[in-house]
Amino acid sequence: MPIITLLTDFGMNNEYTGAMKGVILSINPLATVVDINHQLDPYDRIGAAYQVKSYFSFFPKGTVHVVVVDPGVGGSRGIIVVESGSYFFLAPDNGVLSLIIREHPAVRIFYIENEAYFLHPVSRTFHGRDIFAPVAAHLSKGEDPGKMGKQGGVHQLCLLDIAKSFFLNEEQLVGHIVSIDRFGNIITNIESSAIDTLSETMPHREIEIRLNDLRIRGLSESFDSVAPLDPLAIIGSRGYLEIAVNCGSAQHAIQAAKSDTVTVLLVEPK
Amino acid sequence: MPIITLLTDFGMNNEYTGAMKGVILSINPLATVVDINHQLDPYDRIGAAYQVKSYFSFFPKGTVHVVVVDPGVGGSRGIIVVESGSYFFLAPDNGVLSLIIREHPAVRIFYIENEAYFLHPVSRTFHGRDIFAPVAAHLSKGEDPGKMGKQGGVHQLCLLDIAKSFFLNEEQLVGHIVSIDRFGNIITNIESSAIDTLSETMPHREIEIRLNDLRIRGLSESFDSVAPLDPLAIIGSRGYLEIAVNCGSAQHAIQAAKSDTVTVLLVEPK
Amino acid sequence: MPIITLLTDFGMNNEYTGAMKGVILSINPLATVVDINHQLDPYDRIGAAYQVKSYFSFFPKGTVHVVVVDPGVGGSRGIIVVESGSYFFLAPDNGVLSLIIREHPAVRIFYIENEAYFLHPVSRTFHGRDIFAPVAAHLSKGEDPGKMGKQGGVHQLCLLDIAKSFFLNEEQLVGHIVSIDRFGNIITNIESSAIDTLSETMPHREIEIRLNDLRIRGLSESFDSVAPLDPLAIIGSRGYLEIAVNCGSAQHAIQAAKSDTVTVLLVEPK
Repeated sequence: MPIITLLTDFGMNNEYTGAMKGVILSINPLATVVDINHQLDPYDRIGAAYQVKSYFSFFPKGTVHVVVVDPGVGGSRGIIVVESGSYFFLAPDNGVLSLIIREHPAVRIFYIENEAYFLHPVSRTFHGRDIFAPVAAHLSKGEDPGKMGKQGGVHQLCLLDIAKSFFLNEEQLVGHIVSIDRFGNIITNIESSAIDTLSETMPHREIEIRLNDLRIRGLSESFDSVAPLDPLAIIGSRGYLEIAVNCGSAQHAIQAAKSDTVTVLLVEPK
Repeated sequence: MPIITLLTDFGMNNEYTGAMKGVILSINPLATVVDINHQLDPYDRIGAAYQVKSYFSFFPKGTVHVVVVDPGVGGSRGIIVVESGSYFFLAPDNGVLSLIIREHPAVRIFYIENEAYFLHPVSRTFHGRDIFAPVAAHLSKGEDPGKMGKQGGVHQLCLLDIAKSFFLNEEQLVGHIVSIDRFGNIITNIESSAIDTLSETMPHREIEIRLNDLRIRGLSESFDSVAPLDPLAIIGSRGYLEIAVNCGSAQHAIQAAKSDTVTVLLVEPK
Repeated sequence: MPIITLLTDFGMNNEYTGAMKGVILSINPLATVVDINHQLDPYDRIGAAYQVKSYFSFFPKGTVHVVVVDPGVGGSRGIIVVESGSYFFLAPDNGVLSLIIREHPAVRIFYIENEAYFLHPVSRTFHGRDIFAPVAAHLSKGEDPGKMGKQGGVHQLCLLDIAKSFFLNEEQLVGHIVSIDRFGNIITNIESSAIDTLSETMPHREIEIRLNDLRIRGLSESFDSVAPLDPLAIIGSRGYLEIAVNCGSAQHAIQAAKSDTVTVLLVEPK
């Protein structure tokens, strides 16, 4: 059962993703097309990079993951297929796959140029329909990406410099807010494993999370481990530190915004 | 053809429901996953209760209906499977299935605890992906819910006290506004059958619907049975009294809000 | 693999389209239901007409395209099936198929009246669930629309007078803004072929596009053929003239609105 997932910034009030599905089903009637999200902020390549990293591995092996955030559509940017062994990723060569590449450097990369796999005429503004959809459909039928374009190296790729959290010193881990979800949960770029590394340097200390004036001691195991409307820090479903408020909105309570600095420190137990 | 429906308050601008679909299709590649609605107001358990009651019976027997409105995720609340004979309902034990239980008391209830059916590691904040999705997928493959957890009684359940309309006296039926749809139609909790009961007590009288200053005589059979921009009362698709404006928005015309009182009275014919 | 597409103005925060899918899958478990768009402006028949024209042909032959923008639901308006030879279109007889009919006049039209194909009882307000969904499901199973109602003529149809662009004189083509997408791209009703006709009358001239104070010389082949934040004119994916801003929003830059006039002129080369 071939699966194709779609992540775009096309929005919902138009026929664009519908047309893509029509093209896919015309080429591979057996494909299951899964909408991930079409409401990414326009041109938000970093948001796309974080999202595709978060869902891709939950799909069956062989799934074709398509990401179309493509401000350069119709211009000189390339179109790439990244094959990780388990999955295919199809996207413009503009960095939306940066986090996939960073964590899976041993991939094969193909620059898609064989117009035999495109829909004709190719429009100037909608490669989602005319290139990405048909190429994804052919990949989902088992077509060899090597027939679709030349293999290239990772060094040729356009990669985004997506900031990781870093150790300011032995006692201090610094990151920032990546996004805020509709529940008001604040999602950072501080990975669970980095907090573990910090904690292990001085096991008798406790960790404290700082965001503007807010101070939170330790990580919670669940939202309801603090009183209603109290703030907490927790490892979220993406494996990153999140700041939340039990039964409430951290965004409202804390007045934080995307890109604000979040710090994790080692402090003496109270 | 196994079917799994998803009703959540996760919103659309994220990868959350996409990840759930990946988990489901990994376990049961033959499942058809149907999105009902992912834009419930955050934590709106009553809205979820009304919606699931409204669509569940239109699906083929055997469908697995999943409802994830789950402010207590990761905490002490249980997770239940309700089996009605025709359908499975999977949800947190927080009342979102209250209207299903109220109308189908002869159900079997299972408290899901067998971690063999979960995805591991189970995150603290996203049981939709790590518990609800895999359990739903196994149910859709015909797995016995008795293997997933112990059977329990209805009396153990967390049920919401969702107000029904009531007879203030023999001549007066009182309810309230439950929701307002995007067309501005005002949906109440006054059931069609309650209005029938009222009418039958004094068949020579007419009914009048009152909402704030608005007075409407009788029920209409269609929107266009009154002049454009005139208000009307009609039995909606959920079987409840609705107040609408022909070719317009009742919400704009009437200035009503969720929870406002709506009354149906018996009055002398004009 | 039977396919049914859905285009509605029902919005997303409700169970309406979910209920339709349940009805469809109950009648035809093999159907693939494709959501096109459920966020059309309420009652926007012209928007629906443009969208269905834009996606229908990208689907496999035999697809059933359902359009439910239906302010007259439950009233006297008819329900039609339009059969083009390759596709079925199912919609209220209120003009949403006007552009399909205009470009494919040799269709067969059926007025759907056979209640054996409806869900019972038929609600007064939700024919999407009770009529359109079951009729679409039966069509997708190969049922003859001739059994569902009487054949009628195009002249009986309710058609919308959707304005085409027109030649004011030999040197001037006049149209208007049809919609603006979420990227701020301005979509007009001026067809690519009309611009070709204009250009051919005086091949030594250049074309200039005018919208309010904006003047654009010539058509671009891609967004990045002008400097970032500069405006350009381009043929969009629907085959109509669009006005855009490279890496920006034409709507913000130009302060234009739906229905504003757009003119294409022949001018002397600079």
